Amino acid sequence: MAVCTVYTIPTTTHLGFNQKNQVYFYNNKTYNYKRANNFFTRPYPYVITCSAGDSQTVVIGLAADSGCGKSTFMRRLTSVFGGAAEPPKGGNPDSNTLISDTTTVICLDDFHSLDRTGRKEKGVTALDPRANDFDLMYDQVKALKQGKPVDKPIYNHVSGLLDPPEVIQPPKILVIEGLHPMYDARVRELLDFSLYLDISNEVKFAWKIQRDMKERGHSLESIKASIEARKPDFDAYIDPQKQYADVVIEVLPTQLIPDDDEGKVLRVRMIQKEGVKFFNPVYLFDEGSTISWIPCGRKLTCSYPGIKFSYGPDTYYGNEVTVLEMDGIFDRLDELIYVESHLSNLSTKFYGEVTQQMLKHQDFPGSNNGTGFFQTIIGLKIRDLFEQLVASRSGAPAAAAKV
Amino acid sequence: MAVCTVYTIPTTTHLGFNQKNQVYFYNNKTYNYKRANNFFTRPYPYVITCSAGDSQTVVIGLAADSGCGKSTFMRRLTSVFGGAAEPPKGGNPDSNTLISDTTTVICLDDFHSLDRTGRKEKGVTALDPRANDFDLMYDQVKALKQGKPVDKPIYNHVSGLLDPPEVIQPPKILVIEGLHPMYDARVRELLDFSLYLDISNEVKFAWKIQRDMKERGHSLESIKASIEARKPDFDAYIDPQKQYADVVIEVLPTQLIPDDDEGKVLRVRMIQKEGVKFFNPVYLFDEGSTISWIPCGRKLTCSYPGIKFSYGPDTYYGNEVTVLEMDGIFDRLDELIYVESHLSNLSTKFYGEVTQQMLKHQDFPGSNNGTGFFQTIIGLKIRDLFEQLVASRSGAPAAAAKV
Repeated sequence: MAVCTVYTIPTTTHLGFNQKNQVYFYNNKTYNYKRANNFFTRPYPYVITCSAGDSQTVVIGLAADSGCGKSTFMRRLTSVFGGAAEPPKGGNPDSNTLISDTTTVICLDDFHSLDRTGRKEKGVTALDPRANDFDLMYDQVKALKQGKPVDKPIYNHVSGLLDPPEVIQPPKILVIEGLHPMYDARVRELLDFSLYLDISNEVKFAWKIQRDMKERGHSLESIKASIEARKPDFDAYIDPQKQYADVVIEVLPTQLIPDDDEGKVLRVRMIQKEGVKFFNPVYLFDEGSTISWIPCGRKLTCSYPGIKFSYGPDTYYGNEVTVLEMDGIFDRLDELIYVESHLSNLSTKFYGEVTQQMLKHQDFPGSNNGTGFFQTIIGLKIRDLFEQLVASRSGAPAAAAKV
Repeated sequence: MAVCTVYTIPTTTHLGFNQKNQVYFYNNKTYNYKRANNFFTRPYPYVITCSAGDSQTVVIGLAADSGCGKSTFMRRLTSVFGGAAEPPKGGNPDSNTLISDTTTVICLDDFHSLDRTGRKEKGVTALDPRANDFDLMYDQVKALKQGKPVDKPIYNHVSGLLDPPEVIQPPKILVIEGLHPMYDARVRELLDFSLYLDISNEVKFAWKIQRDMKERGHSLESIKASIEARKPDFDAYIDPQKQYADVVIEVLPTQLIPDDDEGKVLRVRMIQKEGVKFFNPVYLFDEGSTISWIPCGRKLTCSYPGIKFSYGPDTYYGNEVTVLEMDGIFDRLDELIYVESHLSNLSTKFYGEVTQQMLKHQDFPGSNNGTGFFQTIIGLKIRDLFEQLVASRSGAPAAAAKV
C-alpha cells in the first residue's frame, strides 16, 4: 500500500472536506479515507494521479575522487538535518554506509563488480566502468527511491573483497557518493540533485604529500607515480561527470599568495547551474552581476593573506552557471558572520545559521576556508530542496483530475 | 542689526517660552524679543553666543585647470538647488560670476593682480601665485562669509585686462572656482568644503586635441607645446592643492579598452576624504571593504566596453580616503538607475534623484560617464552639507551660556 496525501478541491468534493486529508487507496474502483480517526470506503469520484508521496526518497549524487573530503561533506550535510551519521548498527563493521535520522549515505564502491584481485587480474582500475555494476546500482537506487528496501553489497576496503550484502531501508534522503554517481544515464536520471567535488591536480598533489609522505612515509616519487597512474582513467570516466552536476565545488591553489604550492590556502569555487528546480543559486550583493569583494578593510581586519570573494555569471560545459568563489582563510567568527550576512539565497532558517554550523564543526577539515563554507551552504541548500520537493509532491492539487 | 535664532532652555527661562523664539538684540545690556507679534525689552539674563546664524554663507572651493569641466560642474550644482545660474543682471557682460537663487559662483581669475600684459612683462603665467592677489581674495571671501557684500574685481578673459569691480552680495552658498582656491592657507581655512578636479595628462591631451586641433585648427605640435609650457607652474602651484581637497575627482583613460587613447571612454575616480564634518562618503554595497562590480550581466545588458565600478578604502597624501571609481559609459536610463540603486550615502531626497538630475542635463558634457555622475552626486552631497551646516548653526542651544 502506498500512502498519498491528496488535496481535494473543496467546491467539487461531495465529502465536504476542505482541509488536507489522508487518503488510502487500494485499487481503481474504491478508495478508503480517514476522517476523525474513522475509515470509510467510497467508490472513487476522481482519478487520483499520485506519486509515492511524502515517503518518496530524495536522491542526491556526490561525485569525487577518493579521499577528497566526501566524508566531511557528509558529516556537514547530516548535521544540518540534526543528528549524527553512523554505520548500520550490528552489521558488518566494514560497512561503508552512514545512517542518520533523515539521511542514508551509501558508497558507490559497494557496486564494484570486481574485487581487488579481480581488478588486478583483468588489469582495470576501480575507476573503470568495467569494474562496476551499473545495472545493480540503477536497480537498487530506483528501488530505494520508490520506497523499497534493498540488499546492497558491501565492498570491503580493508580486505578488498565483496562482503555479504546489508539491508538498506529507504531513507528520506539518499546520498550516493563515490566515483560514478553521474556516469550511468539511468542512475543520473534518478538524481534530484547532483554535486561534483573537483580538486585540482595541484591541490590533490599537495594534500597527498601532506598525508602520504609526511604522515605515512611514502616517497615523493611513489606519490607522483600513483597520481600519474590514476590519471588516464580519471580523465576518461570520472572528470566528465562534472558537466552533469548541479553544483561543482572546485578546489584550487590560492591566488592571494604568489606561486604558493603549500595547498594550505585555497581558492574554492562553487559553480551553480542555473534553472535547477528548487535550487536558487547563492549570490553576493547583486544577483547576476560580476563582483569581487575583499571584506577585510575598515570594518573587518583579516590576517595575511586576507579573504577575497568573487561572484558572477559564467558558462560551464555549455550551461549557464553562477559562480561564487572564496580565496583565503577565515581567522575568526566575526569574519564568518560578516561574510554570511552579505550573501543571499543561503536557505538558512535563521540569521547566522551557516556560521553556527561552521562553529559546531570547527574541528572538521576545511572549516576555515571555502571548502567547509560552501559544503555547509550546500547542506542548507539540500535541506531546502528536500523540503520544497516534499511540499511540491504532497501539495499538488493540480495532479488530481476528474474522471 | 544681526538676526539670530536662539533656543533658550525652557527650564531656566523666566519668560516661559519653550518653543523656538526669535530674539533681536542690540547690545550687551538688554535684549528685545518678539512673542505673539508684540516686542518686549528685557535686561538680558544670558550671554548669547551667536554666529551670524542662518545667514552665514557656506563656502565651497573648486580647484581645476582651466577648461576642465568646472562650468558644467557649476551648472549641475546649481541645478540641484533649483533654478539656473546666470551672470549678474545689467553688469559687465564679460563678468565671470554666475548667480542663482542659492548659489553664487565666482571665478578666482578675478583676483589676478597682473593682467595679460603685466604677466607677459614679468614673465609669469596666470598659474603663478605672483600673478594673483591672495590678500584681496582672502578679505573678500571672508567678508562674504560674514554676510557682507564686496566690490570684486573682474578679470576680462576677452581683453585680458582688469575691468572695474562688480558688487557681490553674500549668497547662501559661495563657490570659489579657479586655479588657487586652496593655495592660500587663510582662504583654505574659510572653505566649508573643497573639491579638486584632477584631469590626467593623457585625457587633457586627448581633449585638447579634440577641441584645439579638430575644432580650432591648431597643430598637434602647438598643443603639445602649450601643455608642456604650463606644466612646471601647474605642478608647482596647482597640483599640490589636491592634498587639501575633501573630494578629488580624478579623470583617467579607460582600462576597459586596451591602449585606448581616444579619451572618449573615461575611468573616473571620486576620492573622498574620511572624517570631514557633514560629509559621509558614498559607498557601494559594503562600507569600508574593497569591491569591484560589473553591473552588466544577466539583469542589465550594456554595450561594449561595459561599465565597471570599483570601491574601497585607500590613503591619499597621507589621509584616509574612500575611493569610488567608474570606468565606462552609460548607454541608457536603466543602467543609471540600476547603479544608483546600489550606492549608499548619496544624500538624495527621493529614490532616483541622481538619475533624474542626470536625465535633466543629458546634453551636458560627461552625462554618460563618471564625470557627470560624480559631479551630480557631489552636488547632492553639497546640498546635504549645506543643510546640515545651517541646521547645526541655528540649532545649537549649547552656544547659549549663563552669565
